[in-house]
Amino acid sequence: MSADIVIQEVCPRDGLQIEPIVVPTDVKVALIDRLSVLGFRRIEAGSFVSQKAVPALADGDAVFRSIVRREGVVFVALIPNLRGAERALQADADEVNFVMSASETHNRVNMGMDHQGSLSALAEVTAAIGRRAVLNATLATAFGCPFEGEQHEGKVLRLIETYLRLGAQSITLADTTGMANPKLVRQRVKSVLGLVPRAQLTLHFHNTRGLGLINVMAGFEAGALRFDASLGGLGGCPFAPGASGNVCTEDLVNLCREIGLNTGLDLEGLIALSRTLPSMIGHPVPGQVARAGRACDLHSVPLGITLTD
Amino acid sequence: MSADIVIQEVCPRDGLQIEPIVVPTDVKVALIDRLSVLGFRRIEAGSFVSQKAVPALADGDAVFRSIVRREGVVFVALIPNLRGAERALQADADEVNFVMSASETHNRVNMGMDHQGSLSALAEVTAAIGRRAVLNATLATAFGCPFEGEQHEGKVLRLIETYLRLGAQSITLADTTGMANPKLVRQRVKSVLGLVPRAQLTLHFHNTRGLGLINVMAGFEAGALRFDASLGGLGGCPFAPGASGNVCTEDLVNLCREIGLNTGLDLEGLIALSRTLPSMIGHPVPGQVARAGRACDLHSVPLGITLTD
Repeated sequence: MSADIVIQEVCPRDGLQIEPIVVPTDVKVALIDRLSVLGFRRIEAGSFVSQKAVPALADGDAVFRSIVRREGVVFVALIPNLRGAERALQADADEVNFVMSASETHNRVNMGMDHQGSLSALAEVTAAIGRRAVLNATLATAFGCPFEGEQHEGKVLRLIETYLRLGAQSITLADTTGMANPKLVRQRVKSVLGLVPRAQLTLHFHNTRGLGLINVMAGFEAGALRFDASLGGLGGCPFAPGASGNVCTEDLVNLCREIGLNTGLDLEGLIALSRTLPSMIGHPVPGQVARAGRACDLHSVPLGITLTD
Repeated sequence: MSADIVIQEVCPRDGLQIEPIVVPTDVKVALIDRLSVLGFRRIEAGSFVSQKAVPALADGDAVFRSIVRREGVVFVALIPNLRGAERALQADADEVNFVMSASETHNRVNMGMDHQGSLSALAEVTAAIGRRAVLNATLATAFGCPFEGEQHEGKVLRLIETYLRLGAQSITLADTTGMANPKLVRQRVKSVLGLVPRAQLTLHFHNTRGLGLINVMAGFEAGALRFDASLGGLGGCPFAPGASGNVCTEDLVNLCREIGLNTGLDLEGLIALSRTLPSMIGHPVPGQVARAGRACDLHSVPLGITLTD
């Protein structure tokens, strides 16, 4: 049965990247191997960025070398530049995910480059990759920047056109710090679908202000099909301290199940795996369905303490 | 400016009812007095139920006697039976909120009565109240019961008709344990609006599985206008342990603000008040906007640690 909505799992990359502890390589590999039998067609398994900036993911090469490759599962590596792309190719990533921010201020803070620097890097990445991997390009802060605020649609569309001209085969719009809302998502997705076919567009939302799932549904209703999510809702952003992270995979799958959308994913398996995360990273995770159970999980009748007397 | 959506604050009742510590009466009164200047037209300020079952709210009489009554603010008391209604009238509640569960199993556990017992109580309540207060009737577990599962629409509609026949002036549909989903909410609200005018219908959602805000928006799109929410997202349900509570007031107000719906509420005041809750109850609260700030709150540019090397 083909899925009505495609969920790309990003916990091994976006989920673990901000954790203060470094999860050992074999534990990461075991997590990815368990994820890859739950029905995902796409898993972002690591990144090839500055090891100083993100020590938690410094072992990307070893992770990609060690995971079990499964038929029909695309393993994605996030990269910011040519050097990252070369490491990703060396590690045999199926797809590289280039990232730049719509907000030039955010890009300078995050990447240490202006737009021109990142776009030159994208051109180098395209040339280096050739046909050896798929090239996705993510536009971060596409729904708002914590420094600049609103990002105008004209700029977002122009940058996507530039991405496509420079060789990106698919596009991700990322709400990096949870500033999107369903009204903005509907408008922006409709406009972007004028440039990018729906099968080549991914939306990446954070649940910073509790709007992750509602933004996914707004994007879906506006025509998007592919969405990033992170097991347990792991992830987050250094500029929204204390806030929760990515859209939670099992919470999204539970929602889809309740409204009759097929995800192709094993919800009970996801919940069981999510429940192993707190001991892996040393703290509770934001996801709610792993705590509360599925909506369809009934309880036995307790001895009552009644409200009446 | 009149509100596009009416938010009734239920933190002093549904939020505090499940807390293991008893908040002192003067602290409750101060909380309600601070809430009542933030723009609410309706505040559920306490309940008159068994003091053994809910010791946290045993001081309802003192709370209602001590709060400042403000022009235009309706103070509501939850009651399960005639005795509760008499106490609420004595305490000069503006509105009494009778509650029974759509699920008879849940009603036996929660109320110690079958439907016939609760409906007889409602008839007694109506007679006792006369014109001395408004009578709202809540149908709990209206979107699903943790023991029985799905609640058929025919039963829900029949019980609402009975409520109206027995004298209820307005109706609340409550998703007591967070089992609703946006598809079900749309269907049920459309059907219920055939019986109840939109100005007399309130929807009460819990965020147990992360669907609180999306359910509010589904209900609003289907024609509902009035929604319960709790400061900080306080609340919860004994049958969904570890799960988060009611829809969070400030998270809902932030969402409304972002999509251009006027709530008439002071979002900055709500956030400031929500930030006092953890010290009041001794633990963090589920609300996210009080932690992350409003979407429009920008940050200053930090010294960058960049992803590139």
